[in-house]
Amino acid sequence: MERTEIAALYKDTPADGTVVTVCGWAKNIRDSKNIGFIALSDGGCFKTLQVVFEAAKLSNYEEVAHTGLYSSLKVTGRLILTPEAKQPFEVNADSIEILGDCPAEEYPLQKKKMSMEYLRTMPTLRPRTNTFNAVFRVRSVAAYAIHRFFQENGFVYAHSPLLTASDCEGAGEMFRVTTLDLDNLPKTEEGKADYSQDFFGKPVNLTVSGQLEAEAMAMAFGKVYTFGPTFRAEKSFTTRHAAEFWMIEPEMAFCDLAGYMDVAEAMTKYVIRYVLDNCPDEMDFFNKFIDKGLIERLELVANSDFGRVSYTEAVEILKKNNKKFQYPVEWGVDIQTEHERYLTEVVYKKPVFVTDYPKEIKSFYMKQNPDGKTVAAADMLVPGIGELIGGSQREESYEKLAARMDGLGLDKAAYDWYLDLRKFGGVEHAGFGVGFERLLMYLTGVQNIRDVLPFPRTAYGF
Amino acid sequence: MERTEIAALYKDTPADGTVVTVCGWAKNIRDSKNIGFIALSDGGCFKTLQVVFEAAKLSNYEEVAHTGLYSSLKVTGRLILTPEAKQPFEVNADSIEILGDCPAEEYPLQKKKMSMEYLRTMPTLRPRTNTFNAVFRVRSVAAYAIHRFFQENGFVYAHSPLLTASDCEGAGEMFRVTTLDLDNLPKTEEGKADYSQDFFGKPVNLTVSGQLEAEAMAMAFGKVYTFGPTFRAEKSFTTRHAAEFWMIEPEMAFCDLAGYMDVAEAMTKYVIRYVLDNCPDEMDFFNKFIDKGLIERLELVANSDFGRVSYTEAVEILKKNNKKFQYPVEWGVDIQTEHERYLTEVVYKKPVFVTDYPKEIKSFYMKQNPDGKTVAAADMLVPGIGELIGGSQREESYEKLAARMDGLGLDKAAYDWYLDLRKFGGVEHAGFGVGFERLLMYLTGVQNIRDVLPFPRTAYGF
Repeated sequence: MERTEIAALYKDTPADGTVVTVCGWAKNIRDSKNIGFIALSDGGCFKTLQVVFEAAKLSNYEEVAHTGLYSSLKVTGRLILTPEAKQPFEVNADSIEILGDCPAEEYPLQKKKMSMEYLRTMPTLRPRTNTFNAVFRVRSVAAYAIHRFFQENGFVYAHSPLLTASDCEGAGEMFRVTTLDLDNLPKTEEGKADYSQDFFGKPVNLTVSGQLEAEAMAMAFGKVYTFGPTFRAEKSFTTRHAAEFWMIEPEMAFCDLAGYMDVAEAMTKYVIRYVLDNCPDEMDFFNKFIDKGLIERLELVANSDFGRVSYTEAVEILKKNNKKFQYPVEWGVDIQTEHERYLTEVVYKKPVFVTDYPKEIKSFYMKQNPDGKTVAAADMLVPGIGELIGGSQREESYEKLAARMDGLGLDKAAYDWYLDLRKFGGVEHAGFGVGFERLLMYLTGVQNIRDVLPFPRTAYGF
Repeated sequence: MERTEIAALYKDTPADGTVVTVCGWAKNIRDSKNIGFIALSDGGCFKTLQVVFEAAKLSNYEEVAHTGLYSSLKVTGRLILTPEAKQPFEVNADSIEILGDCPAEEYPLQKKKMSMEYLRTMPTLRPRTNTFNAVFRVRSVAAYAIHRFFQENGFVYAHSPLLTASDCEGAGEMFRVTTLDLDNLPKTEEGKADYSQDFFGKPVNLTVSGQLEAEAMAMAFGKVYTFGPTFRAEKSFTTRHAAEFWMIEPEMAFCDLAGYMDVAEAMTKYVIRYVLDNCPDEMDFFNKFIDKGLIERLELVANSDFGRVSYTEAVEILKKNNKKFQYPVEWGVDIQTEHERYLTEVVYKKPVFVTDYPKEIKSFYMKQNPDGKTVAAADMLVPGIGELIGGSQREESYEKLAARMDGLGLDKAAYDWYLDLRKFGGVEHAGFGVGFERLLMYLTGVQNIRDVLPFPRTAYGF
C-alpha cells in the first residue's frame, strides 16, 4: 500500500500543500458539526497526526465522524503547516477510506483511563494504549542500545542455549522440558520417569543463566555478551519477578572486578542516554504520567561517576543507622532492598557499587579474595530501585574453584567442562548480569514487571 | 588488566617503536633456537598478532618457547612496523608472562586439522578454532545487522513469549514445559496428568513461532519484528533441523504480498553487505576453506534484483524439465528443494520469489486470493540452498479466516484474540519468517546447522 509514514512527516516535513496519503488508526475523533478532527496513529511513532475533515469535501463525512475509535483509515489530503498550533502541521483530507471498522460496542478498550490491572487482561490489545505503546517502544530501543553498546565495544553476541542439563547457580527452581506423554508416562523399573525415552534421552530444563556458557565463549572471543530469555520456576507473587524474562550477561577475559564495574557503568549510562535521545516523546510521557522526576533521576545517573564502596565499609555505614531499618544489618548478612536504597539514595545520592561480599552469601564461581572471607563480587545499586546489576570476577584457579565446589557439595563431574576452562589457557575474567525487565522498569518508572513484558509469564499465570 | 586490544592495533596502528602490552592466547608458537614467534589472539578479531621473542631478552625464553598452545600470555614490547612482511606489524617482546598454562598432553584440541564431527563433541572449546571462531563472530555480526536493518527502518523489536498455550501452525510437534514432579505425577480422577497443579495451572509448551503475537503487536506499532529462540520437537536427523533455533519474524501493517517481498529482499541484501563489509577476514577464510565461490555468490545476490514468479508459472517451467527431478511436479503439490534450486540456480540464476501457492499446502492464516485456489504466500529461493525465507499476506477478513479455520477443523475459541485482530481496526498486513541458522549457513557456506549453533540442541542430542 503506497503510504507516507507519519514518523517520516515529522522527520522531514514536506512543503505546505503537498498531497500525502497516510494510513493509521483513529486514536481520537472529534465531530464539530461540519468539520471533524482525527488523531491518527500508524504506530511508527508516539506522536499522532491531526487529520481535518470537512462535510463539504467528504461524501462519507457522517460515516467517518461516527466510526469507532481505532478504526483503520486511509487518508489522502494536503499537508498544511500550522506554525501557530500545538502540532506543527495537519492534513486536510480530500478523501478518507475506512479500511477496517472497530465497533465501539464490542471493543474492550475505552477512551477513559483504564487500570493497569484491567489492561493486563488483554495483552494483545493493550499495546494500542499510550502507556504500553510507549513502554514497548522503549523496550525495543533499549534492547537495540544494548546491542549497539556491546557491538561498538568489540563484544561478540553469544547465544547461550535455553535447553540445558545443568543449573548455573546450583539452586534455582527450574522448568522441566519434555516430550514424554504425561498421560501415559514411561517408567523405569524403579517406578521413576524414564528420561531415556525423552527427546534428548535425559532430563532437560530451561536455563536460569547463560553465564557458564558465556565464560567458555569469552575464552575464545575475549569479550562476549548474551541477550536472551531466561526462566525461573519460582512462585514469587511480587511486582518484580517473572517466570520468563530476558537477561544480558556480558563476560570478559583479561578483566578483573574493577574492569567489570567500568563496563557496567558505561553500559548503564549509554542505554539511558540512547533512550533519552531517541524516545523523547515517550520519556516525556512517563515523566508526566507515570513517574514525575524520572528524567531528572536518569540524567543524574547518566552524568555522575558511580560510587564504589566495600561491603564491609557499607555495613559500617548502615549499622550507624540500624534504627531506620526493618532488618538491622551486621557483617555477614545479605543487605536488603531497604539498605541498598539507603546507600544509593541517602548516602551516595547516585549509583554505587558495593564490592567484596562475604563468600557465604554469594555464588561458588566468584573469585575468592586473599582475606579468605570475601569474594570479588559487586552489585550496582541505583536510586529508586536498589540492585540493578550483579556481577563478579570469576575464580580462575582450578584448585580454589574445585575446593569451593567440594565445600558446597556440588557435583564436580557435572561441571567438568567449566572447571577445564581454568586448565586450558585460563585467565582472569569477570562478568555480570542485567535483568532486562528491571532495567526497563528503571528507565520508564513502570512499577510492575508484568507491564514491561509484552506477554508476561509470571506466578500469576497467563 | 591494562592491555591494548589486538583489534585496536589493526584499526589504529601506533607509531613504530611504541611500547604496548597485549594479552591473548598462543595459537601458534615457533622456536628457531634463540628467536621465537607467537601468533597471539585475544579473540577480539580474526587476525592474530605476531610476537617475536628472543633468548637474549627473556630470562624465561625456554619456558615460553615450550608452553602449550592456547596458553594465555601477557606480552609487553615494542610495536615494529613491517611493511615488507605478510603482516603489517609485529611486537618485539621485552617480557612475556604466562598467565595460564595449557598442557598439550591434556588439551583435546590439536594443531592438525580436526573433523567437524570431532569438534562437535566439545562445544565449549571449538570456538577457539579458526572455523568456529569465524562462524560465531559472523553469527554475532549478522544478528546485529538484522537489528540495525529493522531499527533503521522504523520497526519495533517485539519480544514474543516462549512459554505458550497455543500452537501457531496447529501442527508442529512441541516441547511440554512443566514443574510437575514426574516421579510422582499428580493425576486427575480420569487418570490423566493434573495440569491444574502445574506452575501455570494449564498445559504449557515452548513456542514454535511468534507470528500470531507479532501480528497483534503490528496492529499497534505498524511494523514489528521478533528475533528470538524457537523450538521444534521433531526427530529430524538432518543437517538442517535443530530442536532449538533462532527466528526472525517481521510483521507489517498496511502491507501486501509485494510489500513483504520488498522488505525481505532489502533485508537479505543488507545483511549480506553488512557481513561482507564487517567480517572481511572471516569471509575470506570461508571462501578459501569452506565454500569456494561463496563471496562471488553472495555478491551476486546483493547486487541483483530478485525475480518473482507465480507458483502456477513455476510449475509450468518445472514440468518441462520433469525428467531431471526425483519427484515430478504438477500443480497442487509442494515443490521440493530440488525444484527450488533448479528455479533459482538454472532458470533465474539469482534469488527468486515463488508466489501464490495452492491454499491446501499452506497455512490457515494466509490471505485467500480471488481465484479461490491460491493464497498470497511467497517463498524466497536462493542459489545454493533453495528456500531461505517464507512469508505471506495474512487473511484480514474475519469471515474468510473463520471459514477457513472451520474448514480445517481448528478450534476458533483458542484463537479468539487472533480473530479479534480482524474485528478491531483490522488492516491489510503481511509478514515473513527467517530461520537465523539457515541464513548463517547461507552466509558462511557451513553445511550443518550444528556448526552454526554455539551449543546445538538437535535430534542427535547434546
